[in-house]
Amino acid sequence: MTRWKPDAQLRLIGAAITLFDERGYEETTVAQIAQAAGLTKRTFFRYFADKREVLFNGSNELIEDWVAAVAAAPPDLSPMAAVCAGLDPIAAMFVERHAFARIRARIIVANPEVQERELIKLQSLAVAIKDVLLDRGVSPNPAILAAQAGVTVFHVAFGRWVEQDDPTALRRFMDESLDELRSVTTA
Amino acid sequence: MTRWKPDAQLRLIGAAITLFDERGYEETTVAQIAQAAGLTKRTFFRYFADKREVLFNGSNELIEDWVAAVAAAPPDLSPMAAVCAGLDPIAAMFVERHAFARIRARIIVANPEVQERELIKLQSLAVAIKDVLLDRGVSPNPAILAAQAGVTVFHVAFGRWVEQDDPTALRRFMDESLDELRSVTTA
Repeated sequence: MTRWKPDAQLRLIGAAITLFDERGYEETTVAQIAQAAGLTKRTFFRYFADKREVLFNGSNELIEDWVAAVAAAPPDLSPMAAVCAGLDPIAAMFVERHAFARIRARIIVANPEVQERELIKLQSLAVAIKDVLLDRGVSPNPAILAAQAGVTVFHVAFGRWVEQDDPTALRRFMDESLDELRSVTTA
Repeated sequence: MTRWKPDAQLRLIGAAITLFDERGYEETTVAQIAQAAGLTKRTFFRYFADKREVLFNGSNELIEDWVAAVAAAPPDLSPMAAVCAGLDPIAAMFVERHAFARIRARIIVANPEVQERELIKLQSLAVAIKDVLLDRGVSPNPAILAAQAGVTVFHVAFGRWVEQDDPTALRRFMDESLDELRSVTTA
């Protein structure tokens, strides 16, 4: 499911995540990442604005794939069912990224500036899903709430997924989170 | 419902929001805010780390009041009902802040750095509510989801409230958002 990426970009991501894990995120410099990847700092900055961006390389792909799945869902689906049409492709996309995601999750917990970026990306995701629901003719209020509910389900499931060893468990955690969200809101 | 605040702090908030509204947030300096309040920059920095913080003066109060209401809710309430015990005091607290909130909402939309802070504060709110639910003996998964649902309901209702003229409408918008969240998740 991974989109084609230039070899240099993949090498930089791999080198960065290894260094972040071994030495700590704060302590790792762009120069060290470039060197470990056998590339120059200049090449690094061709792909990433800063070292933080290495951790968010998959975010646009996540948003695009989720939005595309909602847009392509059968027109008679409820707003929430249309949002959930994104869960299969997203869960599939992340299977091979489990090791990366686990390291990344530890970095996010430890670094406020990375947490900030994560929150902004999740908000962008919610806005993008809301917008595609509006395009489907959903009214603004249910569109916002279904989009936020979808992002909450994803975020909570993702948090569980990085805390355990099975790379394929994300889809199941999404279903569980959705059931639990239904259950808490209706109780 | 407003907690007592030093007169200088209230004057600085009033002066800042007036200047932000009239001249724009970006264009307003701390020196101008202090001058308009008849105070020094030094006094400003006794109360606020930067001009952005003026917009988040009520955030800690919001979190404290919501958490206190959840903690004080009858022990037999469901997690979501305990979360919703915070809605009455929060809505009451905001009635007299409607004019401020409307100007603030326009600033947030226009300034990414303020948006970031807003997202972080909302995330802190969700974490604080989750933690007090854990203290009440709620299991981690329902605690996270009920807390996130509560913050979503608050955030969506708040967004509607600042777009219309009735300062007392927030409580009603909260109920409507909660009903809509239930409705979209169960559909």
